[in-house]
Amino acid sequence: MIVVVCLNPALDVTHRVDAVDWGGVNRPRAVHARPGCKGLNVARTLHALGVDVLVLGLAGGVTGAGVEAALRELGVPAAFTPVAGETRRTFSVIDGGRVAAFHEPGPEVGAAEYAEFRADYQKAVAGAEAVVLSGSLPPGLPAGTYATLIQAAGVPAVLDTHGEALRRGAAAGAAIVKPNLAELAALAGGPLATRGGPGLAAVAAGELSGAQAVVVTLGPDGLLAATADGCWRARPPATVAGNATGAGDAVAAAPVAGEFRHQDYLGALRAVAVEEVR
Amino acid sequence: MIVVVCLNPALDVTHRVDAVDWGGVNRPRAVHARPGCKGLNVARTLHALGVDVLVLGLAGGVTGAGVEAALRELGVPAAFTPVAGETRRTFSVIDGGRVAAFHEPGPEVGAAEYAEFRADYQKAVAGAEAVVLSGSLPPGLPAGTYATLIQAAGVPAVLDTHGEALRRGAAAGAAIVKPNLAELAALAGGPLATRGGPGLAAVAAGELSGAQAVVVTLGPDGLLAATADGCWRARPPATVAGNATGAGDAVAAAPVAGEFRHQDYLGALRAVAVEEVR
Repeated sequence: MIVVVCLNPALDVTHRVDAVDWGGVNRPRAVHARPGCKGLNVARTLHALGVDVLVLGLAGGVTGAGVEAALRELGVPAAFTPVAGETRRTFSVIDGGRVAAFHEPGPEVGAAEYAEFRADYQKAVAGAEAVVLSGSLPPGLPAGTYATLIQAAGVPAVLDTHGEALRRGAAAGAAIVKPNLAELAALAGGPLATRGGPGLAAVAAGELSGAQAVVVTLGPDGLLAATADGCWRARPPATVAGNATGAGDAVAAAPVAGEFRHQDYLGALRAVAVEEVR
Repeated sequence: MIVVVCLNPALDVTHRVDAVDWGGVNRPRAVHARPGCKGLNVARTLHALGVDVLVLGLAGGVTGAGVEAALRELGVPAAFTPVAGETRRTFSVIDGGRVAAFHEPGPEVGAAEYAEFRADYQKAVAGAEAVVLSGSLPPGLPAGTYATLIQAAGVPAVLDTHGEALRRGAAAGAAIVKPNLAELAALAGGPLATRGGPGLAAVAAGELSGAQAVVVTLGPDGLLAATADGCWRARPPATVAGNATGAGDAVAAAPVAGEFRHQDYLGALRAVAVEEVR
C-alpha cells in the first residue's frame, strides 16, 4: 500500500465563459468541481494504475466534506484528519485560450490538529511500502514539516513541494524529490538556462543534497533524473495535446507504481525513453 | 412570522486581489464566503430588525450544507427542502475598484423535489403574516412558479424577481412587487429615461398590473412607489458610502418589518422621506 499525504487539499472549481466581462456579471456556460492539489493527482494516478493507495491529510468544513465526497465517488480510499478551519477552494476562469486562477491559502492548522494527523500518519506508514508527500503546506505548519514526516516514515518517501520545505525534505533523506524547473530555479535564486543538460543536474544535486535522486520535470521536454550513479533524461515519445495541469504532479506517482517500486526509478525512466546525460 | 422564500440560494465567495493576473495564478489576500441571494439578504435584514422570520427554499450538496451552516451561525432560522443537485456558488473577484462576478446557474430541480417544497411551503404560510419571494428561479422551475406560490399563500406576498416570473407574479395579485430600474426597463423593452417621475410610475403600473403596489428601486436616487391611490417617491436622507450589493434586495424587507406590516407600505415610505409625485 502507498500512503499519499495531502496536507492542503482543495476543491478545484472551474468556470468556462465565452468572453469575460471584467467589470460585470458573467454566467459561466460550464461549471466543474473536482478534488484538487498535487497529492490527489498522484493518488488518482496510482488508483488508475491499480495500485493500492490511501490518502491522508487535513480537511475541514463543507469544502473538506466536498473533497472527501468527490474522492469516494472516484473510489480513491482516503482518511483525512479533521480540522476546524475550512478547506480551501481554487477557482479557475477559462476564457477561450486564457486561464486566470485564484488560489485560496487554506485553513490555519492548530498544534493539536497536527498532532492528531501525526498519530494517523504513523499508524498508516507502518503498513505501507512507500509514502508520497505532495503539495504546499497549509498556514500554521513550519517549513520542516515534510522533513520530519520523511524521517518518521521508515519507508522510502517521494516529495513534491517547493521552497524551504523542499530543501529541508531533501536534506532529511527523501528517496526522490521532484521539483519542476521553476521550483528548482527559485531555490537556485535565478533562471536556469540549461534544459536537461549536465549543468542542470549539477544544480539539482547541489540545491537538493540529501535526496537519493532528484527528478526535475521539464514540461514538454520530459524530465531529468540526477542520482549518485549518474544523470538520465527521458523525453516523451510523442507530443500530447490537452490541458497539462497535473501532469507534472502525476510524475511523482511513477516511481511507486507497480514494477517501479522499491526505488527502481531508473527502471521507470528506462521504460519511457532514456538517454544518459554526460 | 414572516416566511422568506429563496428557491435558488448561493454561497457567495469573494476574493480580493491587488492586481489580477489575467493569465496566471493569483493568491487572494482576503477570502470571504457567506450565504447569498436576494432572499437571504431580506431574511438577514428582517432578523437584524428583530422580526420573527423563517427561510424556506431548496438546497443541496456540500454548498447547500454550507449555506445552511452559515445561516445557523447568523442565527437566522431556515428549513430548506433538500434537492439532489448542488447549490450554486457565486464567485466575485475584487481588483481595486473593479468587480468581476461569476454566477453559477444553480441545480436542476426535479418535480418530486418541488412537490416536497410545496408541501413545506403550505405548512409554513398557514402560520405566517406575510411571505417574501425573492430572487431567480433555479433551472427546471417554470416562469409561473412565483404566481402559483402567491395565489396559494393566503397572506400578502412581496415579490422581488425579474422577467416573466415577475410579470406573472404581479398578475397573480402580489401585494408588492419590487423591480429595480433595469428590471423594469427589461420588461418595458427599452431604456427608461425618467427617474422617479409620473411617467415611470405609469410604466410600472402598466407592465406589472395586478400587483397592489409597484416599488421601483432607483439606486442612489431612492425609490418610487406606484399604487392605485397615487404615486410617491422617497429619497435617502443622506448619501451612504460602501458596497451597495444587496441594498436593493433589502428594500423588500421594509414593508413586512415591524410597524410597516399589514400592507402599510406608504407608512414605511413616509418614515423615510416621501413626496407625492404628480
